[in-house]
Amino acid sequence: MNHCNHCGNNLSSIIPAGDDRERYVCDECGHIHYQNPRIIVCTLPIYEDKVLLCKRAIEPRYGLWTLPGGFMENGESTHAGALRETREEACANVELLDLYSLYNVPHINQVHLFFRANLLDLNFSSGAESLDVKLYSENEIPWNKLAFTPVMETLKHYFHDRNQNTFPMHCAEILIDPNTKQTITRHF
Amino acid sequence: MNHCNHCGNNLSSIIPAGDDRERYVCDECGHIHYQNPRIIVCTLPIYEDKVLLCKRAIEPRYGLWTLPGGFMENGESTHAGALRETREEACANVELLDLYSLYNVPHINQVHLFFRANLLDLNFSSGAESLDVKLYSENEIPWNKLAFTPVMETLKHYFHDRNQNTFPMHCAEILIDPNTKQTITRHF
Repeated sequence: MNHCNHCGNNLSSIIPAGDDRERYVCDECGHIHYQNPRIIVCTLPIYEDKVLLCKRAIEPRYGLWTLPGGFMENGESTHAGALRETREEACANVELLDLYSLYNVPHINQVHLFFRANLLDLNFSSGAESLDVKLYSENEIPWNKLAFTPVMETLKHYFHDRNQNTFPMHCAEILIDPNTKQTITRHF
Repeated sequence: MNHCNHCGNNLSSIIPAGDDRERYVCDECGHIHYQNPRIIVCTLPIYEDKVLLCKRAIEPRYGLWTLPGGFMENGESTHAGALRETREEACANVELLDLYSLYNVPHINQVHLFFRANLLDLNFSSGAESLDVKLYSENEIPWNKLAFTPVMETLKHYFHDRNQNTFPMHCAEILIDPNTKQTITRHF
């Protein structure tokens, strides 16, 4: 972030009047460039006793498995975004159930939302960003080849909650321990 | 959005290779400027049979009443953001309960999240962005002086759900009818 996207002049990182944190502000026109977290919208597609996973064909985590999801776009809802990402990555037709989990990942300024979903048919296939798309039962899940902590946590909750046949919403924060660099999941 | 914030040169709105929608891309360095929805984090502070509302001291909707909330910042969680906004706008100490409602507002690229919260004491007061902060019981709510549709919807759900003593999460989309310009709430 070097230049003003309004006038092209140089930016300085200063605290604007009436604010309490540094923003990129244009030296010339004064335009303030706010930066805010992005939303990742995902589904947990269920078919009988199985869940649908995608093998990533892109970085980060190329070759690892994930639930379908991606950046929410301007002009769409969380629900529309989750359906779109599921179509794009897994060419899969799902119907959304409830919002099932929310993961804050503050060190990369992201909020991940997962919707439980019914996979409506078996006409799924790899989209452009997937190497493979496959249904997994609980004992087949490639736990040590999952791409992201929020995906792993959501799957763990799902298989636990399924036994109780109750699906409360789960909220947590994924933190990086500054000393060990290990991932910590803090539940709310 | 006229200039590249990386190199300062001109932007064009084009569909980048491998993408399916227009982005602002730099004519010189090729930097792609993604734009994504922002998250508004809010609380529904409860004290006995009352809820805490703030009278806005800023635009938009100056002078109208709202629940405490504002833009989630980089580096924080949804929960930390909701607590921070409640302190800033109402100088109020709350403890968060569950995530209670999610409103998509796609025509302004926003997602509003409301957490139920217990107001811990009566030491609240107007923050810099509030003209007044006040506890309202159900029959005192200034329904025709509320600032935002998601606030009104969340309050309606709360008073309804309180009678049942059960607080399921509510998700909806706030749309503008292109003909009548009226607000439509579509529940998921």
